[in-house]
Amino acid sequence: MSFELSLNTGTTPKLNLHQAVEAAARAGLTHIGPWRHLIEEVGGAQRAATIIREGGLQASTLCRGGFLTGASPRTKQEALESNQKAIEEAATIGARNLIMVVGGLPSAAHILGGSGDPADKDIVAARDRVARSLDQLVPLALEHGVCLVLEALHPMYAVDRAVLSTLGQALDLATAHPAEAVGVVVDTFHVFWDPQLQQQIQRAGLERRLVSYQVCDFNLPIASNALQSRGMMGDGHIDFATISRWVARAGYRGPVEVEIFNDEINSQDPHLTLATMSQRYESLVLPHLEQAAGIHPASAIN
Amino acid sequence: MSFELSLNTGTTPKLNLHQAVEAAARAGLTHIGPWRHLIEEVGGAQRAATIIREGGLQASTLCRGGFLTGASPRTKQEALESNQKAIEEAATIGARNLIMVVGGLPSAAHILGGSGDPADKDIVAARDRVARSLDQLVPLALEHGVCLVLEALHPMYAVDRAVLSTLGQALDLATAHPAEAVGVVVDTFHVFWDPQLQQQIQRAGLERRLVSYQVCDFNLPIASNALQSRGMMGDGHIDFATISRWVARAGYRGPVEVEIFNDEINSQDPHLTLATMSQRYESLVLPHLEQAAGIHPASAIN
Repeated sequence: MSFELSLNTGTTPKLNLHQAVEAAARAGLTHIGPWRHLIEEVGGAQRAATIIREGGLQASTLCRGGFLTGASPRTKQEALESNQKAIEEAATIGARNLIMVVGGLPSAAHILGGSGDPADKDIVAARDRVARSLDQLVPLALEHGVCLVLEALHPMYAVDRAVLSTLGQALDLATAHPAEAVGVVVDTFHVFWDPQLQQQIQRAGLERRLVSYQVCDFNLPIASNALQSRGMMGDGHIDFATISRWVARAGYRGPVEVEIFNDEINSQDPHLTLATMSQRYESLVLPHLEQAAGIHPASAIN
Repeated sequence: MSFELSLNTGTTPKLNLHQAVEAAARAGLTHIGPWRHLIEEVGGAQRAATIIREGGLQASTLCRGGFLTGASPRTKQEALESNQKAIEEAATIGARNLIMVVGGLPSAAHILGGSGDPADKDIVAARDRVARSLDQLVPLALEHGVCLVLEALHPMYAVDRAVLSTLGQALDLATAHPAEAVGVVVDTFHVFWDPQLQQQIQRAGLERRLVSYQVCDFNLPIASNALQSRGMMGDGHIDFATISRWVARAGYRGPVEVEIFNDEINSQDPHLTLATMSQRYESLVLPHLEQAAGIHPASAIN
């Protein structure tokens, strides 16, 4: 099977891990991408692995590691330990992919509850610290068979969440490491605007680093909490047909995860959300993936 | 003189052209970058030219042309006519530079009061229409001695305002045309996040297309009206020292324009705004421009 739909638990924040697994399975899904706080809630990765397996699902990703831009010895050490634990959790729940949100500027660390230096706005240095942290984490990732999946975030989050803003930049950062240890994810919301998107998706495929495809739409106006601007596929302005074809042509055949942070969607009945996302996926995304992968002839797409 | 401070009238929206010229001159500025509606208000470009000249100022830019992504014959024709008029206005007020905001997707045209096709989310095709429109406008720009200055906008505006999102993309688009007809602007708010920024600023200098430098900060949280997130230098998270050095090293020596859309700043006393922007410019931006340009030794910077 290719292109199986996966529920990222950020889409259904009212559900605990057990409920999310149950809802996803009932909706016919085979994969789930849990966030770490759900794993902590059930008492750890062993228990989470059991819940996911007994629910008949597989973990497509673990969300998330990262936040590697801290400049002080203490924040660096805390980040290292947190990411080591995340690698072990990913391995335990059978998630090959640990999604990495690399972190923002020290001047903005307080926004997400961290500590930093209000005067440190040096984005070049922050990127370098990400590279150095990866150097430290890759041996453990290789040992556990986990891929650190660099996520380019939309540049509107460059200050507070990720100084990694393009797929090309993610691939440049990955180059120093084996493809089985450092990969990249294409998340449509974050990268749809990128003028180099087609060529960098192609490059990601050639370099064997394209290990996750996440879909959601880009809504306007941008939500008052900018993180909540992600939309259900079809509700916003992203051309899923084109990007999905590029992803499949680059050789991607894995699960496709839906991760939507959106107040309205997150607060509605999760079963409605799952039904809608399945329907939208099957009409707006899957046919284009399958066509480009040669699974169905072009004539099957209307 | 190099690096003279210029008031973009978007920073003082309560002032008409006469008032803005007077306030800028009183604050010791030598340049102004007017928006077109202020020119229309005074009865046209001839009268605006007189007001600017009699106020003792020069026009650094005219804001703005563009919105070239319309797909219907009618929207294309309207855009062509509007831009032809803008080129003539720029020439008349003595502005060498016409800032170009290229326009967004047809699916979002309604957001800015235009007309489009809600289903047309094809960003690749929209970019191609920008290129074709430039082909049409360049002869008139050359004839009038006006440079069409492509402005890469922050990717948060890719859908509704500009499918041109990076300086590299702007330079790629400019390549087909003479440097005196098509240039680029570095606006810190729009490009500070770009991992290729240093190399593309350098390239812009080498290709003799770096014709405008605009400064304002990137504030968080993003304002509820995303357009209003621009901040006074020093209030947000941009490293002006580094970017300013890159700009000066690339050979830029022209005026530096301050364009801030921000509810709080826009509604305060414009004289306070001008005083603050002058002070912030002189402490956070100018020393780094001058150092990199060799105008003052490094020891002058504290």
